[in-house]
This record gives sequence, C-alpha cells and structure tokens, in this order.
Amino acid sequence: MPNIGYLNGRFSPLGEITISPDDRGFLFGDGIYEVVRAYHGVPAFWQDHCARLLRSAKEIQLPFQIQPHDFHQLLLTGLEQSGFSEGKIYIQITRGAAPREHGFPPNVSPTVFLSFREMGAMPVALTKRGAKVITVPDIRWDRCDIKSLNLLPNVLAKQKAQEAKVFEAIFVRDGFVIEGATSNIFLVKDGQLRTPERNHFVLSGVTQQQVIQVAQAHGQQVHFDRIPLEDLYQAEEAFLVGTTIEVLPVVTVDGQTVHNGKPGPVTCALQHYFSELVAQF
Amino acid sequence: MPNIGYLNGRFSPLGEITISPDDRGFLFGDGIYEVVRAYHGVPAFWQDHCARLLRSAKEIQLPFQIQPHDFHQLLLTGLEQSGFSEGKIYIQITRGAAPREHGFPPNVSPTVFLSFREMGAMPVALTKRGAKVITVPDIRWDRCDIKSLNLLPNVLAKQKAQEAKVFEAIFVRDGFVIEGATSNIFLVKDGQLRTPERNHFVLSGVTQQQVIQVAQAHGQQVHFDRIPLEDLYQAEEAFLVGTTIEVLPVVTVDGQTVHNGKPGPVTCALQHYFSELVAQF
Repeated sequence: MPNIGYLNGRFSPLGEITISPDDRGFLFGDGIYEVVRAYHGVPAFWQDHCARLLRSAKEIQLPFQIQPHDFHQLLLTGLEQSGFSEGKIYIQITRGAAPREHGFPPNVSPTVFLSFREMGAMPVALTKRGAKVITVPDIRWDRCDIKSLNLLPNVLAKQKAQEAKVFEAIFVRDGFVIEGATSNIFLVKDGQLRTPERNHFVLSGVTQQQVIQVAQAHGQQVHFDRIPLEDLYQAEEAFLVGTTIEVLPVVTVDGQTVHNGKPGPVTCALQHYFSELVAQF
Repeated sequence: MPNIGYLNGRFSPLGEITISPDDRGFLFGDGIYEVVRAYHGVPAFWQDHCARLLRSAKEIQLPFQIQPHDFHQLLLTGLEQSGFSEGKIYIQITRGAAPREHGFPPNVSPTVFLSFREMGAMPVALTKRGAKVITVPDIRWDRCDIKSLNLLPNVLAKQKAQEAKVFEAIFVRDGFVIEGATSNIFLVKDGQLRTPERNHFVLSGVTQQQVIQVAQAHGQQVHFDRIPLEDLYQAEEAFLVGTTIEVLPVVTVDGQTVHNGKPGPVTCALQHYFSELVAQF
C-alpha cells in the first residue's frame, strides 16, 4: 500500500509531491503542524487537533481557515487512498511560497501539505518495561505553546537522547521540568498525579488532555504544577504521553532509577484506560 | 535574465527546482543558511560567509564539508549563468530528506540549495535620510549565534515592524539591545562607537565585522558592550548593518527621534568608507 500525500487540493503518491524552494516552510520554518493518529481508519481526537492547529495558525497570523468537518473528510479520503487503517497523518500548513523576504508576502495562499503513512507499533519492550530519559536545558524560544515548524532545538535534544541510548530528552527550564522533545510528561509524587503547568513555554498536548480526562473519569485528580527537577528524580512514577507513544512509562531519568525501576500502578492503569479509549474508534 | 537555482550538484532555472516535502528544512527548519552579495560579479566577503556557514553546520552537527574555493567556483558559475553582476546569492544547507523522525536520519546526504537573484538597490530615501525602527522583546532561542532556518520569531518581528510602518525590529533581551530581526546594530553614545557584545544570543555579522575593521582602519575604536535600551534611546547616532542594507542610519527608535533625527557624522563616514570598500570588488 502506498504512502499518500496531499498538496493544496490534490492527492497523489507521497513520492510524487514536491515543494517550491521558495516555500516559507523551507526558508523560515514559517508554519505549523499536527500529527494525527488513525485507529481503525478513524482520525483520533480530531476536534482537539483541529482546534490546536487553528490556534497555532492564529498565533502566528497565518490566514488559514478550514471547516473542521471538511478537513476531517480530507483525512478520511487520504486514509482510504493509502489503505492504512492504522495511520499516521501529518499535517503541515505554511505561509506559502514567495521570494525570500522576512515580512509576510502579499497575495500568497498558505501551503497545505498532508502525508498518510502506516503507524508502526511501539516496541513492547518499551511500553511494558518502560523508557529511559535524559534531561536537557530548555534553550527553545518563549512560544513553545505554538506547534510551529521551528523544531531545531527539539531535533538536537532528541538526537542527544539517541546518542545517550535513551528514548526521550526532557526539557528543563530554570530548574523546572517542562516537556519532552516530542512528548508531554506526568509524574506521581507523594501519591499526587502531576503534569507541568500550562503556559507559553509548553505545548498543550492532545494526548495529555485525553489522559487527564481518563484519569479524572476514574477518580484520579491531576495537578497542573511547577515541577522542580528534583521532584522528577524523587518521583514514585513518571510517564510520557503523545500521539504516537500513547502512555509510556519512564523508568530512569539521567541514569537514576525512578522508584523501583518498574512501571508504577498509576501509569499502568492509565496506559490500560487509554488503550480502552482508543479501542472504541 | 533568469533567476538561477542550484540543487545538489545541478544548476537550472530557479523556477524548475523542487524540494521533497520530507526535506528536514521543510519539516523541522533543520538547516543553516547564508546570504552573500555579489558586487560586479564578485561574491563579497566570501571567506567570512563560508567560515560562518561551516561553523553553523558544526554547531548543529550537520556533516557538511566543502572546500571554500570549490564553493566559490559554484557561486561564480551561478552568477555567470544568471547574468547578474549585482547578485543576491542565497545558500541553504539542510540535513537532507528522510521520513519524519526528530533524531538525525542515517545515511542521508545534506540538501545543498542555492539561488541567484538580482540585488535591488536600497531606496535612497532610506540610505540618505535614515530608517525608523521599533524594539520588540527577544523571544528567540538561546543559540542565535547559529544562522539556522528557525526564523519564525524573526519573521514575526519583521512583520511587526512593517505593520508599524518602520524598517526594522530590534530585539531587546532582559533590557539589553541584541540585534535587528535581519541586521546588526551600532550606536554612538558619549562619543563612543558601540555594538552589542558577542555571545550565543546574537549572530556575529559579516558586514558588522567589516564595518568594525573599516572603522578601526580610520582610527575609530569600536566597543563590544552590553547596551541597555536606554542607551539606544539616548544615543547621538545609531545605524544598522547587514549584507543587503550595508550601513543604514537609524533616525527614530520606538517613535523617539535619535538625536536631531538626521544621520550622524560617524554613521555617514562609515557608510562612505564601506561603499569605498565594496567598490573595490
């Protein structure tokens, strides 16, 4: 089955799609994106992803408007063409193509690019036994609440994790835990389930929000909090969440074992509840 | 005469060049760039630009190697094909094209893209009467010494300047003047010629360095300094420098007139000396 692409109104095999080198995504990272996962052919949590995409567009003054329902139809069409029922849908909107000047170009339409690939399963060793993470200084800009294409610090952090043979790098700013290079983070300490407070330094995660709702539905309170790095080191449990990783236990941080080095009960329960949630699609 | 492009070993009309949507420049801004100006067919200050390009590559672990002389030959060939003797050469190197994963992809060659366009003259009204600027909070990442493609905050700052009907936006971090969205800045206060100290928050400008050398050659000391915003407001003179703007007087900052609102003597002298320098190409 082929990977499918979509560019400005047209579907085609992904390999046939090309972009102008004058595209402001290529020149400036002047755009935004979302990654949506399809379970059994259904784009999961589409309302949330679409709302965040439109919010990101607004925050960078990108005049991109689409009806969530019409966009949803696009995703279904792409999935159908690809034949992937377990799909990884990538959506990227840029400010369009124009000769390189920093200010917004006049009379240019946004570039709308989508790709539809098969979603690979996470290795069971990771999801069951848990992942190792390192922490890195958060050197990113002050608007990480925008899901923009300016991802070089995330790339460098993730690469640092890979070189350290761990799964993820957790950004720490002024001594406080913020988020992973490609994920949000939760921890359990003194019996409390906590995730970093929401502000313009952190991306509000779609999976993060779903996990919070699932937790609450099962009577587990979630605290938005400033989390000192020390609390992560001393946590009883920690886990990452994200569209492709779902709920992933963390068992070591910077080489230090989290509690007994095994996924904890709150983590495993939420992992289970989340899998029940997505099984409904 | 046509705009010329170059992609991975091949010259062609710029309009015929296309990029893969899997290019990491497009997906992550995972790359670096330079803008080189050609005077009378000669790429100016090429050694400086090339050294900075290679430094930027090294800082983001981008394995791009080229002999400065061979690269220089590429620039000359492109200029010749374009027919532009006054040329604006854009050089962009990305980590290459690969299915989207943040960590560095294995076995991928960098994308080398160049464009050759005609260099338009700056409006005389600006160069003679001077430019207006505003200041904006510096919300960029902590490695602005790298000339990377993560330029969204620069785009938004420049746009803010355009909406305010001024030429440039000057980034201010923690109360100190850093640089323009697309330029470096100098000022004269209490008779001293000053430019912001060099560190990882500021790009070391090629034109900035040339202007410093020109100043020194004419007996004018230049001080690298922490410059409080207040000093910019109270300056006797201020000016911007950059590859395309050369030396550009600043006559208002945030609506406040710099001194008497006319380009000052040090600025005009350096503007003149710099024009003599580039007339030698």
